[in-house]
Amino acid sequence: MIASTPKPPYYAVIFSTIRTTVDDGYLETAHRMEELAKLQPGYLGIESARDGLGITVSYWESLETILNWKNNVEHTVAREKGRALWYKKYQLRICKVEHEYGFEK
Amino acid sequence: MIASTPKPPYYAVIFSTIRTTVDDGYLETAHRMEELAKLQPGYLGIESARDGLGITVSYWESLETILNWKNNVEHTVAREKGRALWYKKYQLRICKVEHEYGFEK
Repeated sequence: MIASTPKPPYYAVIFSTIRTTVDDGYLETAHRMEELAKLQPGYLGIESARDGLGITVSYWESLETILNWKNNVEHTVAREKGRALWYKKYQLRICKVEHEYGFEK
Repeated sequence: MIASTPKPPYYAVIFSTIRTTVDDGYLETAHRMEELAKLQPGYLGIESARDGLGITVSYWESLETILNWKNNVEHTVAREKGRALWYKKYQLRICKVEHEYGFEK
C-alpha cells in the first residue's frame, strides 16, 4: 500500500536492508514493529517492499517523533536482534520530505 | 544493492508505485531509465525493490540535479508512458537527506 501522507514538510526514514539467512522470529518481529510504530505519536504511514534488497520507508511528523520511536524500549531490543541475527547490512537515512506528487488512474 | 552515498546533506527521490497488468516494454524502459539516470550530473545512486508495491529511491546531489533529470526528454516520454500504461497509482516524494547511519557485519 502507498501511504497517504499530509502536505509536506514531514519526515521520512528510509531503511534499506540486506538480510542474513537467519529467520528466528524475523517476520513476527517485523510485523510487531510495524504495529507498534503505528501507535507512536507523529506516525504518518509506512511502505515496504523486498526482492533481495528490502526497502521500508516510514513517515513521521517531525525529527522529534522519529527520535521518540528510536528510543522505544521494545524497538531498541528489536534493533539489537536485527544487528545480531537478521541483517547482513543496512543503511538508514532520515530525510525531510519537501515536495510530493501523486498520480492515480 | 544498497547505494553508497556521500555524507549528508543530499537529496532522495522516493518513487512508490502500484503497477497495472500491462507490460508493453515496461522492464526495458525501467532498465533504460536506470542506465540514463546514472549518466546525469549529480546522480549518487539508486535502490529498488518490488513485491506488489514497488519502491525505487534515487539519490541526488541537489534539487537542481533532480529537476534536470525530470526535464530529460527521454525520461519525460517514459513518464508519459508510465501514466498511460504501466502505473495504476504512484507517489513521488522529494526529500533532503539530513542524517545517515550504516551497519555491516
